[in-house]
Amino acid sequence: MSGTLYIVGLGPADERWLTLEAQQALGEAQDIIGYEPYVARVPLRDGQTRIASDNRVEIDRARDALERAQAGRVVAVVSGGDPGVFAMAAALFEAVDAGPAEWRALDIRVVPGVSAMQAAAARLGAPLGHDFCAISLSDNLKPWDVIEKRLEHAARGDFVIALYNPASRARPTRIADAFALLRRFLPGDTFVGLAKSVGREKEDLILTQLDSVDPALVDMSTLVVIGASGTRRIARENARDWVYTSRKAG
Amino acid sequence: MSGTLYIVGLGPADERWLTLEAQQALGEAQDIIGYEPYVARVPLRDGQTRIASDNRVEIDRARDALERAQAGRVVAVVSGGDPGVFAMAAALFEAVDAGPAEWRALDIRVVPGVSAMQAAAARLGAPLGHDFCAISLSDNLKPWDVIEKRLEHAARGDFVIALYNPASRARPTRIADAFALLRRFLPGDTFVGLAKSVGREKEDLILTQLDSVDPALVDMSTLVVIGASGTRRIARENARDWVYTSRKAG
Repeated sequence: MSGTLYIVGLGPADERWLTLEAQQALGEAQDIIGYEPYVARVPLRDGQTRIASDNRVEIDRARDALERAQAGRVVAVVSGGDPGVFAMAAALFEAVDAGPAEWRALDIRVVPGVSAMQAAAARLGAPLGHDFCAISLSDNLKPWDVIEKRLEHAARGDFVIALYNPASRARPTRIADAFALLRRFLPGDTFVGLAKSVGREKEDLILTQLDSVDPALVDMSTLVVIGASGTRRIARENARDWVYTSRKAG
Repeated sequence: MSGTLYIVGLGPADERWLTLEAQQALGEAQDIIGYEPYVARVPLRDGQTRIASDNRVEIDRARDALERAQAGRVVAVVSGGDPGVFAMAAALFEAVDAGPAEWRALDIRVVPGVSAMQAAAARLGAPLGHDFCAISLSDNLKPWDVIEKRLEHAARGDFVIALYNPASRARPTRIADAFALLRRFLPGDTFVGLAKSVGREKEDLILTQLDSVDPALVDMSTLVVIGASGTRRIARENARDWVYTSRKAG
């Protein structure tokens, strides 16, 4: 008899964003599988096996999890944020799609979580309060011209834009290229928010705009938010401004 | 001394998607304010005041909450899903922006939650696994031609699209108009998912495609997901297919 495979969102940072459903799945799991820093966030429980791996082996990790579930184990693959948003859930189903037929009969349950962009938005105010999109700048798996096309349509459609994976050692100029492209379509005073390490001790929020943002401030822990025409800044004394996007057209 | 205003996401449906942070805010709050069905989902606590109102009075509700916080109360405004995504957080900050200067000194904290599109995606598999956008079809506050422009750019940019507020008694043809527009840009076999009452007893998931979707099946409780070129369906025997979006280009 085969087991169960949970794909669990831990939310960004500490346990404050963990849902009841996620706690339950982690409690049931015999095997906890994931990228090392995420596995480390799961409270230790007696008898539970923990398999931590590097971030670059997503498909191997997915296959390992599926084989364990096939063998009858209750497995939890853990992801930061929401596993359904630029994370392990798509990798898991990709592995099922390419794998043996019996994996299609498995009991697979995705447990959603608070995503990085939602936590960043909550800290800034409500910048995702109206029509928005999320784009990954990683060109590991898709060509850069596809990313350029999406950035252009996001800008021309007047969407608020959340940028995931904006920087890496392998491609340090990508975020600068993205800002340059967006400047062709959007006004210089378009809001830009850099939300770094949200929910962690070293959290840092930078409120700036498209014509003056410094790409060197963007690192792998940064979620970048680009405003739309309806995005407004509320000036405050002795406190960080609030940012929200009006539900009206712009 | 002024109080605190929490804007709390309850997640869709029952308490399984409630975060620890949300539970804590609801426990601290003296006043619980919101649309009646959301207020009803908050566990009763002695001494807590509950102010339930109609869904059409968002700005009045926001002002009431801000006045109570200004008067020193600990207030929680509750929202289904994530308050930052098409919900109360933007309405609250809109009220602050238009309100008296002292409201800018208030302690306002947005508590994010699992949004309807994330819960729907989790049930379907991982359709939001790659670049996606969220569009509200409500034309209460923005003109329909802005919505049309966004749908067109979302389609031309090859985004997965989550449609919020796809139907209402006041505008029953909007979703049919949206499908007709999307058919001008997307292949007829583009995946369409209708996720109805996700997480509730009457939950219903309909997997179909753009050239054959019946707009009459879409009601106010439906979250509509339109696939991108990279969205794939995994056929299963005796079970609903899984749907995911590949992290590759298409």
